[in-house]
Amino acid sequence: MFGSMMNTPMTIGQILDHASNIHGDKHVHTLLPNGKIHRYNYTTLQRRVNQLSNATKSLGINPSDRIATFVSNTFQHLELYYAIPNIGAIIHPLNVQLSPKQLEKIVKEAENNIIFVDNIYADQFAHLQNEIGFRHAILIDNTNQKINNKDSFLKYEQFISEKDCDYSTGIQDENCAMALCYTSGTNGEPKGVLYTHRSMYLHTMAVNHADVFGLTESDVVMPLVPMYHVMAWGLPYATMLSGAELVLHGTNREQIVNLICETGVTVAAGVPTVWKKHLPEMISRKHEINTLNKIIVGGETMPISLIEVFEKELGIEVRHAWGMTEMSPTGTLCRLRKAHEKHSDEEKLKIKAMQGRPIPGVQIRLMNGTQNILPWNGISVGELQVRSPWTVSSYYNTEPSLEHFTEDGWLRTGDLATINSEGYVQIVDRMKSLIRSGGESISTVQLETCLSIHPQVIEAVVIGVPNDQWGERPIAVIVLANNTDENITEILKQHLANEFPNFWIPDRFVYVDEIPKTSVGKTDKQAIIRRILTS
Amino acid sequence: MFGSMMNTPMTIGQILDHASNIHGDKHVHTLLPNGKIHRYNYTTLQRRVNQLSNATKSLGINPSDRIATFVSNTFQHLELYYAIPNIGAIIHPLNVQLSPKQLEKIVKEAENNIIFVDNIYADQFAHLQNEIGFRHAILIDNTNQKINNKDSFLKYEQFISEKDCDYSTGIQDENCAMALCYTSGTNGEPKGVLYTHRSMYLHTMAVNHADVFGLTESDVVMPLVPMYHVMAWGLPYATMLSGAELVLHGTNREQIVNLICETGVTVAAGVPTVWKKHLPEMISRKHEINTLNKIIVGGETMPISLIEVFEKELGIEVRHAWGMTEMSPTGTLCRLRKAHEKHSDEEKLKIKAMQGRPIPGVQIRLMNGTQNILPWNGISVGELQVRSPWTVSSYYNTEPSLEHFTEDGWLRTGDLATINSEGYVQIVDRMKSLIRSGGESISTVQLETCLSIHPQVIEAVVIGVPNDQWGERPIAVIVLANNTDENITEILKQHLANEFPNFWIPDRFVYVDEIPKTSVGKTDKQAIIRRILTS
Repeated sequence: MFGSMMNTPMTIGQILDHASNIHGDKHVHTLLPNGKIHRYNYTTLQRRVNQLSNATKSLGINPSDRIATFVSNTFQHLELYYAIPNIGAIIHPLNVQLSPKQLEKIVKEAENNIIFVDNIYADQFAHLQNEIGFRHAILIDNTNQKINNKDSFLKYEQFISEKDCDYSTGIQDENCAMALCYTSGTNGEPKGVLYTHRSMYLHTMAVNHADVFGLTESDVVMPLVPMYHVMAWGLPYATMLSGAELVLHGTNREQIVNLICETGVTVAAGVPTVWKKHLPEMISRKHEINTLNKIIVGGETMPISLIEVFEKELGIEVRHAWGMTEMSPTGTLCRLRKAHEKHSDEEKLKIKAMQGRPIPGVQIRLMNGTQNILPWNGISVGELQVRSPWTVSSYYNTEPSLEHFTEDGWLRTGDLATINSEGYVQIVDRMKSLIRSGGESISTVQLETCLSIHPQVIEAVVIGVPNDQWGERPIAVIVLANNTDENITEILKQHLANEFPNFWIPDRFVYVDEIPKTSVGKTDKQAIIRRILTS
Repeated sequence: MFGSMMNTPMTIGQILDHASNIHGDKHVHTLLPNGKIHRYNYTTLQRRVNQLSNATKSLGINPSDRIATFVSNTFQHLELYYAIPNIGAIIHPLNVQLSPKQLEKIVKEAENNIIFVDNIYADQFAHLQNEIGFRHAILIDNTNQKINNKDSFLKYEQFISEKDCDYSTGIQDENCAMALCYTSGTNGEPKGVLYTHRSMYLHTMAVNHADVFGLTESDVVMPLVPMYHVMAWGLPYATMLSGAELVLHGTNREQIVNLICETGVTVAAGVPTVWKKHLPEMISRKHEINTLNKIIVGGETMPISLIEVFEKELGIEVRHAWGMTEMSPTGTLCRLRKAHEKHSDEEKLKIKAMQGRPIPGVQIRLMNGTQNILPWNGISVGELQVRSPWTVSSYYNTEPSLEHFTEDGWLRTGDLATINSEGYVQIVDRMKSLIRSGGESISTVQLETCLSIHPQVIEAVVIGVPNDQWGERPIAVIVLANNTDENITEILKQHLANEFPNFWIPDRFVYVDEIPKTSVGKTDKQAIIRRILTS
């Protein structure tokens, strides 16, 4: 027997309706390239989204057309986040930092023939246009910079102006696709994930729980993840459903401390690298940024020392999350339990450095190599597998394979992890980046974590390099603090020897000024390996 | 084009799985009739739910059978809340305060032939059993009191003991019905609402938003609404999804202040009457109940004076909500906006006494008698109409009619309201309880609100009584504070005359010791009218 409740579909358009209906006077703030802040409110946003919907539809869109964006974190990109799904099409944000070859491949696979382009990326785009020949390219211009072939573009403001300010979405099936994002390709080629209205709406509902992102109407939220990366962690949607204000940093991440001061940001989200980079300025301007009370961190493990500085010195709560493009992206989030109140500060920090517990709606399990489920004892290491209404069931344009999905339909994350009895996940390593030395495994993540808590270490990465005798051996690549001891290598070896077997101790310790990062701020191990092997 | 995200159905069983997986050591506390507190944790709860599922299934259940409960707020009722939906059946909690005739009618309509009975309701049940002849009746006995016909019952603990502790639900379609609740029948006969796994899961997701109920893992939550009333406002599900502890008061609402002290309740939910009743004890034991930081209030408008005492004197945040059995039940919730920070205390209280704004997922609108949509200006009064994935689309066993639903599929709430430009709803009256005097309308709610803020008034109700000349005229029924002035009637008339036209002033002022309440704590206007007319 079916119940008799309304089967109103969950659609992205409803989020915008909700925001403009009851939070219409809340603002989107965008930092423009000239350093000024552009502002308008959610009522205006909805009007412009409707105009953009009508304009885009007039280009002759078929349902489910994939429309590409090559745009930074601006209000126009936000408009596209809503308008494209509203007309039944699929927004496909392109990662501007991918190689020309990768971009070309992705655009061809997605069959994009309409694209919105930020003029700051116009040069990069020229190459892509030569290869693809988009039917329509619409230029978003916040700089008035001169670019080549300007005439070949439609101009965004002209494009939407004089269009009808009303638009009523016809989406009746919440399982319709609304966005296409490609993985960053850390392991293998980028793969497409096709989100639905349902999956993104439910992800939005879940992250707004008090114990997840916990956004409220009084928040001012700044995503520092690019909007081409997993829909900026879903924050443009979550922020507006909560009624908070949204702050977009444009292309200029240098100015984020100023931006916090000027807009009163209360919650910001980004990868650890970003926080590390801005930490000195944040500390020196501590009293100016005192509106900021919470950061959401993901993409990589946040070093324990960094968590400590944020919480103790700046009084900013760190919510450590784990996710994947395949999970929209949020899978787990780390907060302390009430039961931890009496723990020592050290114990608390150790917990906060874990990836945390599944958010409501997400199921997790650990599986060993022979597909047996492992216990949650904090010791057994296995592959983390996940299931949720916002997890991918097959990659774009490919049949689900056993490499990525289990026979009973769980996603194989490729992350090796432990889960403790309270459900806290600790990522131990990527399956593909465990070092196999003499037939034994060495966890690069555990070595990195241990190195990074040493007071003389700012950042540490451990990579595996080929070795004739052992197959593979670890090398530590380290950014040191100022004024370190001369015999630092011996000190660090001893520090590791206190925790790990001898064969885990890296063969070489390489000291560098900076760790190379990928386009989304993750450690670029491939680049480090190339550099080490050729040095 | 459909997206490729997992179509895992949203089911009630997942809430329990989540709670027992990562909050397994959290407790359910039940106040027993002997005054002791029964406790077990969510791991045990799940084991017992599985045993109950297996036991109930062994009675020969067909999918979608409606299974009745006649039980107070106890851990066994909580077990039924999960076990019955898990086996694909439908839990039908019976309102023990309905008349025998109403109960009989409902049970027949729902075709219940299995029932779980609390032994404290055994006498009441005996009558029902005579009329219905249930195939199986299972006795829940927390008192060991003697009852008649004890042998005709299965005994709950025997019933579930030795059953398999594993149970795997087979629910694949989230639109399957999981619970049947009848409206309290304030207007007309009780009507059945058939909730689905989807609707209840989504309601749970929505109320756990930071700005709605905002439950967290560190909370201890006590619903004071009976579990037969709109699934106790969904709190048994919301509490467990958040990982909070759950406190059930059994049948004994006299002891709730003790219960708060003993279990450390942080959030409690109930109708205004309950709060008013316990207020003196709460004030005198203020320092003992200092864990309590938030109350969720609904079912009736919370008088402004009561909100003030809770917030100012007790330091307890009041979250004023509005809902209906038809909405699972939550529709709107009142919190101040950031923009109200600079308002005066008086202005803030005035806002807090409104019913608040639609929670995420709920759409609202105002409609006048000619089915035109009214503006959100805080002045225009119209019928409040709603739509959401947790709103009923037709009543149990009846075709949707234009009396209850609009042609475009919105629920007609029957509540008259205003909505202001910020989306705050203020319920002005029930459509059916507006007083029509000489062709003009008089709002009883507005009169009541005005009377209740007078310092000499504790509670005020305005009813309409037949009048030869005017059709209907208002009478005020009032509970006075101690030591009131002798000419209190004149004072109150003057107080109303400052706000309303002369013809609104009630013809009579009747002073009583107590206002009669319905089974769910709402003002029983019918009883008052009967008493007034026969006095």
